[in-house]
Amino acid sequence: MMNRPCIILKDAQLAENIGAAARVMANFGLSDLRLVRPRDGWPQPRAWASASGAHWPLDEATVFESLTDAIADLTLVLATTARPREATLPVLSPREGAAQLSAAAGAGRACGVLFGGERAGLEADDIALCQAIVTAPVDERHHSLNLAQAVAITAYEWRMAAAQGAPAAFGAAPPPAEHGALLGFYEQLESELDAAGFFHPAEKRPSMVRNLRVALGRAGFTDQEVRTLRGVVTALSRGRGRVLEKLAARKAARLTE
Amino acid sequence: MMNRPCIILKDAQLAENIGAAARVMANFGLSDLRLVRPRDGWPQPRAWASASGAHWPLDEATVFESLTDAIADLTLVLATTARPREATLPVLSPREGAAQLSAAAGAGRACGVLFGGERAGLEADDIALCQAIVTAPVDERHHSLNLAQAVAITAYEWRMAAAQGAPAAFGAAPPPAEHGALLGFYEQLESELDAAGFFHPAEKRPSMVRNLRVALGRAGFTDQEVRTLRGVVTALSRGRGRVLEKLAARKAARLTE
Repeated sequence: MMNRPCIILKDAQLAENIGAAARVMANFGLSDLRLVRPRDGWPQPRAWASASGAHWPLDEATVFESLTDAIADLTLVLATTARPREATLPVLSPREGAAQLSAAAGAGRACGVLFGGERAGLEADDIALCQAIVTAPVDERHHSLNLAQAVAITAYEWRMAAAQGAPAAFGAAPPPAEHGALLGFYEQLESELDAAGFFHPAEKRPSMVRNLRVALGRAGFTDQEVRTLRGVVTALSRGRGRVLEKLAARKAARLTE
Repeated sequence: MMNRPCIILKDAQLAENIGAAARVMANFGLSDLRLVRPRDGWPQPRAWASASGAHWPLDEATVFESLTDAIADLTLVLATTARPREATLPVLSPREGAAQLSAAAGAGRACGVLFGGERAGLEADDIALCQAIVTAPVDERHHSLNLAQAVAITAYEWRMAAAQGAPAAFGAAPPPAEHGALLGFYEQLESELDAAGFFHPAEKRPSMVRNLRVALGRAGFTDQEVRTLRGVVTALSRGRGRVLEKLAARKAARLTE
């Protein structure tokens, strides 16, 4: 069976919206609901009350402490936001996003769509973990889309795209690594850059990290490529160190002669 | 200006759903809301409370005693229902329906989409007044779509059709760097990796270089990103080297004490 995308709600505030999202997921055949730090905790009876009988996405919902945990097993994550702040990621319509999800799912890849909280939406750091931005063509006069309505449009477009069948050509390329592996690489790189004093001034570190992740994330590195790049970082940071260590040791030897 | 379709809610039960429908109408640029016999009368403050600031479709909503009055000035009305009971009318997807609305509106014709009440939906007599049935591709397991969600999908598809499928243009992504700049980065990286002894055995160097370039090339780095990544390579290869150099120098100093 075709993989179906999961729906990830981060910092959702209202249990009613979680329930309404579950209902419309069920309407369009989705069931994997992931909650990252729901404001009022979980489970919330009001979510079931507003799901109108679509209880299974709620019964089986998984709760995560961090976004990185929630997407660790996914190879494609789309960030939904009304006003893209990261112009360096591709910006897709819900329809184009659904086509990508359908192609990925058809190739057996785990994928998901990420939604931010009702008031603040997604943070730039969240978006930097994703492969593309999905934005609905909302009117300038009133661009704030209700959370469950945004899920509705996503789920509807997924269903329309899935009904058309996945394009066959997608299977050829090796699949991107899971986000857990990718994040491991990011953290290794950033830790080495910390050691090398790259991030200065210190207050610019968050945006520098974000920009690096966005740039590297666009490549869709495979598992093998992630391993290679980890080797690259190790070689650059230690290999050169070893060379200099040898030189220094030789110099030290000369000094003690 | 192009005519825009009106949204007709017949026998709506919950003011919250009317408000949510108004909100999503505003999201996608619709404003003509027509109410046929809303169960709890009109106006209902709860509708405004759930419209999240999209008050104008509610302020200007017109209330009718009968469906025939509500659609008297329209030349095309589509009936939305989950389970088409009238096989003698064309059955359209929301997308096909939106294409018809867009064509009609483009020709200056007044048109609308009709929704039934939350519990019972539309009656056969209501549907018989319409030109076609619109039905969303819902899952058999849970086909009952929330009223405001149904309006959301309709309004979204209208907007997509009106814009001819083009998503709102956000500032185009900055263009990828020229290949000359990219190649300069590759060569810097490879030269540092040579110095670090990364490419071994030597006969595998060409394929290792190729694989790295393919992986990094997919990201489509901008000029700014290429400059950042050059800084990353420099920091990793020299910064860490400096740290070790200092340690070695300190060791050398101790040895000579």
